Amino acid sequence: MPLVRIDLLEGRSDAELRLIADTVQSCLEDVFAAPPRDRYQVITEHRPGRIILEDTGLGLERSAGQLVIQVTQQGRDAAQKQALYAALAERLEERAGVRPEDLVVSVVAAEREDWSFGMGRAQFLTGER
Amino acid sequence: MPLVRIDLLEGRSDAELRLIADTVQSCLEDVFAAPPRDRYQVITEHRPGRIILEDTGLGLERSAGQLVIQVTQQGRDAAQKQALYAALAERLEERAGVRPEDLVVSVVAAEREDWSFGMGRAQFLTGER
Amino acid sequence: MPLVRIDLLEGRSDAELRLIADTVQSCLEDVFAAPPRDRYQVITEHRPGRIILEDTGLGLERSAGQLVIQVTQQGRDAAQKQALYAALAERLEERAGVRPEDLVVSVVAAEREDWSFGMGRAQFLTGER
Repeated sequence: MPLVRIDLLEGRSDAELRLIADTVQSCLEDVFAAPPRDRYQVITEHRPGRIILEDTGLGLERSAGQLVIQVTQQGRDAAQKQALYAALAERLEERAGVRPEDLVVSVVAAEREDWSFGMGRAQFLTGER
Repeated sequence: MPLVRIDLLEGRSDAELRLIADTVQSCLEDVFAAPPRDRYQVITEHRPGRIILEDTGLGLERSAGQLVIQVTQQGRDAAQKQALYAALAERLEERAGVRPEDLVVSVVAAEREDWSFGMGRAQFLTGER
Repeated sequence: MPLVRIDLLEGRSDAELRLIADTVQSCLEDVFAAPPRDRYQVITEHRPGRIILEDTGLGLERSAGQLVIQVTQQGRDAAQKQALYAALAERLEERAGVRPEDLVVSVVAAEREDWSFGMGRAQFLTGER
């Protein structure tokens, strides 16, 4: 159920994008305990200058590999979110060559009633999930 | 006031996109009781591979016609949301040929103070709406 | 920390887009008290027909210069939000020629635990910010 928006700059191949998406999904499954096949991702590539990330004075240098991941989800606590950020940074670096300095993550909360996975039904309310 | 993001794959004509957008709006007006002309929609078309939707084990088969609708709104309850999902699935199939299996909906909550429709004013707070 | 999505129609130059983004950022710093270099912006240009904004009966006429600004943030109150809307309308008109009638703003709330600015850390929780 997390809905994940990944925004990054043009320049990665289809295979690289897929690797990033797969890696993000692996973190959601392992750290956010998303069930199997609970995958909802939208990737948007942007031309140069359309993503502007500074660093809130943290001393981070962004590169053209920068990306923003926004996750709409429900029910995870602060510890799970911190574990997600760490797993994303570690695995995206290892598997997809994303520098940890280039990774910005934003989480947004929703409720169980806020999702329909298909068929016009709210599967968390109907008991299907 | 709902702000609606519609993300789908390239391949639909302008007229098909408009029909989808009009149909979504009709559901908001009828089920979410949006007032007339309360329409705020952003449609983004994506190249193949940029939308990845699985099914949380629900047995849904997604096609190239898949779309994600994310609605930021305030004040609707669970019953209204369930009615919205049902109306979206039914009308989008009838009017725009969208398979119910291809429709993912996510709702995000905001408050009355969270909107400016124009002119730099928060019309829900000024009493204009 | 506000994450800002700016959606607008194609047709502005890179310099105009940058001016809009800079102006939005100036409002966040001055009205939302964002610290220096606390800048996280994603700009998406859309083809005609992909942004559909009506006016909730407020008598606003939208033009091709219309734009939607969605700000995910935490902790600002209604007065600050109202001041943000006013500043955005005023400065975007003065500096970037955006008509106040063309400006729609949506705010979404998050919590301190909902952000990682880089390095896989939740900087609001670690005390780095």
